Amino acid sequence: MSDAIRPPARTGTVWGIGVGPGDPELITLKGARLLAEAPVIAYPAPETGDSFARAIAAPHIPDGRTEIVMAMPMVAERFPAQEVYDRAAAAFADHLAAGRDIAVLCEGDPFFYGSFMYLFARLAEDWPVRVVPGVSSLVACAAALETPLVGRNDVLTVLPAPLDEDRLVAHLTRADAAAIVKPGRHIAKIRRALAAADLAADALYIERATLPHQRILPLDAVDEGQAPYFSMILAHRRGRAWVLA
Amino acid sequence: MSDAIRPPARTGTVWGIGVGPGDPELITLKGARLLAEAPVIAYPAPETGDSFARAIAAPHIPDGRTEIVMAMPMVAERFPAQEVYDRAAAAFADHLAAGRDIAVLCEGDPFFYGSFMYLFARLAEDWPVRVVPGVSSLVACAAALETPLVGRNDVLTVLPAPLDEDRLVAHLTRADAAAIVKPGRHIAKIRRALAAADLAADALYIERATLPHQRILPLDAVDEGQAPYFSMILAHRRGRAWVLA
Repeated sequence: MSDAIRPPARTGTVWGIGVGPGDPELITLKGARLLAEAPVIAYPAPETGDSFARAIAAPHIPDGRTEIVMAMPMVAERFPAQEVYDRAAAAFADHLAAGRDIAVLCEGDPFFYGSFMYLFARLAEDWPVRVVPGVSSLVACAAALETPLVGRNDVLTVLPAPLDEDRLVAHLTRADAAAIVKPGRHIAKIRRALAAADLAADALYIERATLPHQRILPLDAVDEGQAPYFSMILAHRRGRAWVLA
Repeated sequence: MSDAIRPPARTGTVWGIGVGPGDPELITLKGARLLAEAPVIAYPAPETGDSFARAIAAPHIPDGRTEIVMAMPMVAERFPAQEVYDRAAAAFADHLAAGRDIAVLCEGDPFFYGSFMYLFARLAEDWPVRVVPGVSSLVACAAALETPLVGRNDVLTVLPAPLDEDRLVAHLTRADAAAIVKPGRHIAKIRRALAAADLAADALYIERATLPHQRILPLDAVDEGQAPYFSMILAHRRGRAWVLA
């Protein structure tokens, strides 16, 4: 037998856990179980203020866990500074090498417009990374709006609002159902694009779906200022009540 | 006081509960709680054979519940016979009028290509109907494939495979990420459409995601016969490992 240092029998696993859209009861049983088991919990947070992902998961996190906060600089389009993820990945490596699992809290679903992909990109080649899917904002908003999203042979298109107006119109024109994510400062442009695609009449805006301060408005009634990050617009070519027709 | 028969103080509520993609642990805490509480449980099932939705939810259903089975005739494109839903809605009405809640088990998410919309259409105008969103097959398949679905300003298009090949190609050509649902007997057509849209190289096929007999194949390796109903094809314009680039 050699005296050389050997790796531990088992390295830790990174679990990307979708904690759902906001209501703490909309986490999965698997997500809640892994949060109860993982010795290390990591999550994004604004540079000042509380982490939304941690607030959702709070009832499921036991006391005394090691917590890694990924503090995000606030930038215009919110593409986060990549150095934050570089540092987080480095901090993760020590825990993983020592055999400790890390649960990463992800708003909604980790792979649906989630920042978890930046960690995945840094870790997946060197460490075991597993994803526990969650309730995405897409289906949570449809449920909160009491409007079926897609059925039968409907085509669904999901569009980030920062896209050029021409691209938005081109996609919307072909869609049966459309979800526009990250509306932010783009409300006026979205309104024009939906009108050009003949989808504006029944478009609905929703913010903070499934939370106590959830708010639903016809798109026409939305202020053209800054929509909160957790908002979405849904429209269906057959109108809001298409399923009843 | 009149002797006339009065309605009960409270009618029952129909809860459309997304039970997730297959793994019974991927139901939400809210879904599991409502299943434990509801005196009546309803679910679709094939005319012969077991209900997939009930199998997923089985660990969360207490003994002794009233169960309403919606037996679905098997038809080519699986658009279910509407009489089944007419009969179910009539059976629901008696329970609801008597104040009994009904939990309807929905595979994946109720409003994402789910048959729950047919019940919703029949009940929502007369009774309280609420939807508990679930983990959709879309995000469950991405997690199982260990491939981020969409990030940044990616456009996601979800396409039912029965669409005409020309329509598939037109949509796929514009998409950054594509999910093709209900592949069934359409594998050859899907392969051609993805190739025409330059999306074929890294397209992945997955069936029975999150179940013990989950199966993942490159699209090229899929038999052109009948894919099972619970299968999906995911492709990304930047290739499977786009997030690592």
